[in-house]
Amino acid sequence: MKTLFSRAFSRIYEIPRKSLFDCPQHRQSLVLTANSHSSIDSNPKEKVDPFSLVADEISLVSNRLRSSAVAEVPELSSAARYFFEHGVEGKRTCSMVLLLMAKSMDKHKPGSSFSCIQDTSRVQLRLKQKLIAEITEMIHVASLIHDDILDDAKTRRGVGSLNSVFGNKLAVLAGDFLLFRALGALASLKNNEQIVSLLATAVENLVTGETMQMAATVEQRCSMEYYMQKTYYKTASLVSNSCKAMALLSDQTPKVAMSAFEYGKNLGMAYQFIDDILDFTGTSASLGKGPLSDIRQGIITAPILFAMEEFPRLKAVTEQGFDNSANINTALEYLWKSNGIQRTKELAAKHANLAAAAIDSLPESSSSDVRRSRQALINLTRILTARNK
Amino acid sequence: MKTLFSRAFSRIYEIPRKSLFDCPQHRQSLVLTANSHSSIDSNPKEKVDPFSLVADEISLVSNRLRSSAVAEVPELSSAARYFFEHGVEGKRTCSMVLLLMAKSMDKHKPGSSFSCIQDTSRVQLRLKQKLIAEITEMIHVASLIHDDILDDAKTRRGVGSLNSVFGNKLAVLAGDFLLFRALGALASLKNNEQIVSLLATAVENLVTGETMQMAATVEQRCSMEYYMQKTYYKTASLVSNSCKAMALLSDQTPKVAMSAFEYGKNLGMAYQFIDDILDFTGTSASLGKGPLSDIRQGIITAPILFAMEEFPRLKAVTEQGFDNSANINTALEYLWKSNGIQRTKELAAKHANLAAAAIDSLPESSSSDVRRSRQALINLTRILTARNK
Repeated sequence: MKTLFSRAFSRIYEIPRKSLFDCPQHRQSLVLTANSHSSIDSNPKEKVDPFSLVADEISLVSNRLRSSAVAEVPELSSAARYFFEHGVEGKRTCSMVLLLMAKSMDKHKPGSSFSCIQDTSRVQLRLKQKLIAEITEMIHVASLIHDDILDDAKTRRGVGSLNSVFGNKLAVLAGDFLLFRALGALASLKNNEQIVSLLATAVENLVTGETMQMAATVEQRCSMEYYMQKTYYKTASLVSNSCKAMALLSDQTPKVAMSAFEYGKNLGMAYQFIDDILDFTGTSASLGKGPLSDIRQGIITAPILFAMEEFPRLKAVTEQGFDNSANINTALEYLWKSNGIQRTKELAAKHANLAAAAIDSLPESSSSDVRRSRQALINLTRILTARNK
Repeated sequence: MKTLFSRAFSRIYEIPRKSLFDCPQHRQSLVLTANSHSSIDSNPKEKVDPFSLVADEISLVSNRLRSSAVAEVPELSSAARYFFEHGVEGKRTCSMVLLLMAKSMDKHKPGSSFSCIQDTSRVQLRLKQKLIAEITEMIHVASLIHDDILDDAKTRRGVGSLNSVFGNKLAVLAGDFLLFRALGALASLKNNEQIVSLLATAVENLVTGETMQMAATVEQRCSMEYYMQKTYYKTASLVSNSCKAMALLSDQTPKVAMSAFEYGKNLGMAYQFIDDILDFTGTSASLGKGPLSDIRQGIITAPILFAMEEFPRLKAVTEQGFDNSANINTALEYLWKSNGIQRTKELAAKHANLAAAAIDSLPESSSSDVRRSRQALINLTRILTARNK
């Protein structure tokens, strides 16, 4: 977990843009896993492509982000829009998850007759849902920008980081601008103070998670409980709270809203666990950065924590710190002797299953659109945990 | 205007804490000016002390800021609460102005009978008003914190700046934390999306103003129009929008809300103009920092802009920059030959009068509390423009 919310989200939300099924390997694993897990999809060969189901709406969200992140001062506009421009906008998986969740919450019965008033209400609901996706992307990007300042990062999404291109000052300001542009957008959601509160909690959690990582004592760094809490705050809180917001917008029951929250939470957690494994097993080419970046920064993640349970002496090494490569090598020796990687995979699978179960627990819907969206959300948990980069 | 919102607000809102009337010079100037300007106060000897009128409520706001700026992680709590602790909390003039504005907006008629429901409603209104004061202080302090990072400032309010004490990283996070803690508090103001929008606009303006200053071309730096716009954004927008929020909370008409806004705007502008004069006329001892700090940073303020109108050659000096003291000395020579200082004083007086006129324009009230609060607001415009430090 290198950075505030960045690596986790830039990966969790950067699925290949065109289609998740462009990759044969993904296609195969998806079909297998969707078949083995989902109780929703009765046809094992149905390939529900999460991205293509909401591709049009994702484009609308992206266009609005580009057009709305405009400030009075050109320099601020350029900085604030930097990560919304074509080519550096990431894979917008954040928007994808939220828009799929919105579709999964649809209460409209197909074939039922509608009055003009009901139609207008549905159009307004769609607009609000897209706005939540936009707001979440703005908060996400603001956190990336401030995060890169904290880490003095040089690159992001294959281009120079905002701080390296525009300088730290403008990067601080651009992050602040996006945070409060998000607030302004939230304010336009009239009478939705519960949703404002959810998003405010998410940002507070992001900040808390980053501080937990920055200020951890050795004892805390060696604690699985601390790691889990930090992982939720840094990686899973924003998407879980935004998923819940989608349910509330659709006037769903508190129980359904909680299921939406649980999906987002467990998806985010599962993703991070895989990310933490890849930091040990990936190559520079596959990761887009050097491997072992966490441990080099003294950040202890699940694989090492599990290894420590098997080899308590690893704690003494951790206490000495990882400023020298000898200690890193010792830690790696313990890791490879242990079941740390395997247990972390199991932890990710557990959370992926919990995410899928949250979708399975939703009240049945007669709408095929709703069912396909839910299937896509379930498939996504498998795709993200099966990835190797 | 050295910093984002900082110097202006740390001064505009740092009137001596115990009482504004502790200083005989202030007392005299207040009586004179209140007498000469106000149409509200028929007794020229009435000494309406702005601070003491709302001292109890200011204390409540301060206590709540200390208790609410608590994060789950101790380090983040310490950083976020730093400027709310006793001794470094400033003079809380921001709260004073807003709480006086709240009292000035009171629609309750003294002596009228009240039902329990009406009493409850009044109590809730008071709570909301104090919350707006808290939120504004949080945004203000967050902007100071980020501002000091931008300027690499070492001190603030007579103590080490947050970045110098806790480091830049924790300072970025503490600013973010306070901004969104403010958002969380805003969310608790149910059904008040207009107020959320006002505060969001204020923060966006703060960021825009700072960027305008940072990214100004020579042409823009020599433009009075640009300077005025930047001054509004950096100094006056937060208090003007918060004043308007107080009026809206009290269910006042749009016209009254606009008067509240105009008061805050013109008070902030007038204050900044005086501040810009003092940067040339003050001493290190009186300013708490070296004089000429603006021009040394290449920031051109009203006195120089007026001097430039009289001596167009000053523009050429400005174009060369103020990295060397010879150019600064040349600029000062032009300034002292010109009426720059005098014209800036007149500009401040004009805005102070506009602020007072905004209060004068409010519908009459039979409540003596309301009238005294309005008198205090008027007096404040004189006190702030008569100051010499």
